[in-house]
Amino acid sequence: MRVGILGYGNLGRGIECAIKQNDDMELTAVFTRRNPEDVKILTENVNVYNVDSILEHKDEVDVLVLCGGSATDLPKQTPEYAKYFNVIDSFDTHARIPEHFANVDKAAKESGHTALISCGWDPGMFSLNRLYANAVLPEGNDYTFWGKGVSQGHSDAIRRVEGVKDGKQYTIPVESALESVRNGENPELTTRQKHLRECFVVAEEGADLKKIEETIKNMPNYFADYDTTVHFISEEELKANHSGIPHGGFVFRTGVTGWNKENKHVIEYSLKLDSNPEFTSSVILAYARAVNRLHNEGVNGCKTVFDIAPAYLSPLSGEEIRAHLL
Amino acid sequence: MRVGILGYGNLGRGIECAIKQNDDMELTAVFTRRNPEDVKILTENVNVYNVDSILEHKDEVDVLVLCGGSATDLPKQTPEYAKYFNVIDSFDTHARIPEHFANVDKAAKESGHTALISCGWDPGMFSLNRLYANAVLPEGNDYTFWGKGVSQGHSDAIRRVEGVKDGKQYTIPVESALESVRNGENPELTTRQKHLRECFVVAEEGADLKKIEETIKNMPNYFADYDTTVHFISEEELKANHSGIPHGGFVFRTGVTGWNKENKHVIEYSLKLDSNPEFTSSVILAYARAVNRLHNEGVNGCKTVFDIAPAYLSPLSGEEIRAHLL
Repeated sequence: MRVGILGYGNLGRGIECAIKQNDDMELTAVFTRRNPEDVKILTENVNVYNVDSILEHKDEVDVLVLCGGSATDLPKQTPEYAKYFNVIDSFDTHARIPEHFANVDKAAKESGHTALISCGWDPGMFSLNRLYANAVLPEGNDYTFWGKGVSQGHSDAIRRVEGVKDGKQYTIPVESALESVRNGENPELTTRQKHLRECFVVAEEGADLKKIEETIKNMPNYFADYDTTVHFISEEELKANHSGIPHGGFVFRTGVTGWNKENKHVIEYSLKLDSNPEFTSSVILAYARAVNRLHNEGVNGCKTVFDIAPAYLSPLSGEEIRAHLL
Repeated sequence: MRVGILGYGNLGRGIECAIKQNDDMELTAVFTRRNPEDVKILTENVNVYNVDSILEHKDEVDVLVLCGGSATDLPKQTPEYAKYFNVIDSFDTHARIPEHFANVDKAAKESGHTALISCGWDPGMFSLNRLYANAVLPEGNDYTFWGKGVSQGHSDAIRRVEGVKDGKQYTIPVESALESVRNGENPELTTRQKHLRECFVVAEEGADLKKIEETIKNMPNYFADYDTTVHFISEEELKANHSGIPHGGFVFRTGVTGWNKENKHVIEYSLKLDSNPEFTSSVILAYARAVNRLHNEGVNGCKTVFDIAPAYLSPLSGEEIRAHLL
């Protein structure tokens, strides 16, 4: 199976690494909006092309992985490239998924291609767990917690504060909230009771630290509704201890069964990830395999993780998975 | 959707309770090998019939749930009833799944019915998590732990010991093993290092307690390979504190990503269940919905949880699940 990558940032590089771990896949080419000569990839003997020439390579690619951002890239790119390729993306603006789905579905159906949107871990593996758990326990409560992990959006917000040179923000689930949910207590949790925000900030020389801290802690939407901690550290320390992109989280469903709803059940799914983009990439590639198989079976249009039978994700045969994983 | 139940033990009763929680389902009838007049069910205005008359009701049932045991009932029942009904079972003898699958698949294809075998939580939800996690992290290690929960087989083994009047056995994961796996340490664990066995025993009057304890602890296959604790308690205490059927467990996959496999990831799925048969029943009913839908789409033959796209489990539409669960 021949994979193309469009966009070579953290996600594109993650896809490239993941291809190396899947024997049935090979990287065909990387497409970039930058000057291809400025993009150095890890794989030997694979070309980097400018995206302007992508249609020249459409017969060399079984699935094109779109590695752009959800804000402006993917809403245009996924429907556009679904005209020429089987495509997969990690579109994660939850509120706009129905609109994006409709656009991609139309393009893919008209061209006879197969597309899958919103792949990764949330949306993605977390969504699957919400769906399975809701189907199994119709009467219950859902809880999703994120972290401990780096939030890119919140880190960007810190870096826009006057006097801040650099910064990283960690989203952290409140341990007592996790325990309460895990114990089946069905708590009603406010925003503040679910997550903490911890900031590591490098200030410009001579900046007013007190003012920076206050500005961050009171920033609406981003920090005001949370218990936020701000640590001032040196640039070296930030680089040494906070240059990773870890993330993860927890999906719970707690519910009841029995004639009188007398029995409680807790379903918990959690991820602890050293690298958010590399794990996202690994999920995407498993679903790229499904996209390719569905296309070969003549199934077209836009899909999500909900539409894919799990067997399509595995390189093993039906006999093998029944014998070894069931 | 009209559901029939064959066999009215803990599982059959669990199915009956779960039907009440799913608005799109109704119980048609319960079929039993016993005298129908001796079987009192919970639902009003639903008949109990002897299994001998089951074929008279075949047009009244969309999916027949087979609630027999894996040792002798299901290997015969599932292929037999797949000739006349869409069927679902919880066959859990892992080693014999390929053979059972082949038998059921043949019967279902010949008669144009849809069947699903080995549904529940293990096999079932745990199997799904093993498959998803293996597809996402091709390089890694799998761990499954069971408990804390009641093992029926081990409880039966205790009760066969001379001088034992009654008994219950709990399988308990070793906490330090869970922690080691959760920390990504990839331990190699012996049988003894993974699970403890805790027994609550009611002895006959005048029995040799020391001998009972030794016999249990040294019982090959069941207890000899584990650290086993034996508590002698009164019949009243057993009834008051150990009459539930809780269970649960943990499925982990720990793996690596990155060009040099430098990043670690931990996927963890866990269940904490007050009632093993009722949770199993809830899983079975969600998949019974999928069986009915697939049959209505003209898909025949034997399936497992691996073959079912998650969307088929939910009573909600594609639009609804994309908008609310993705």
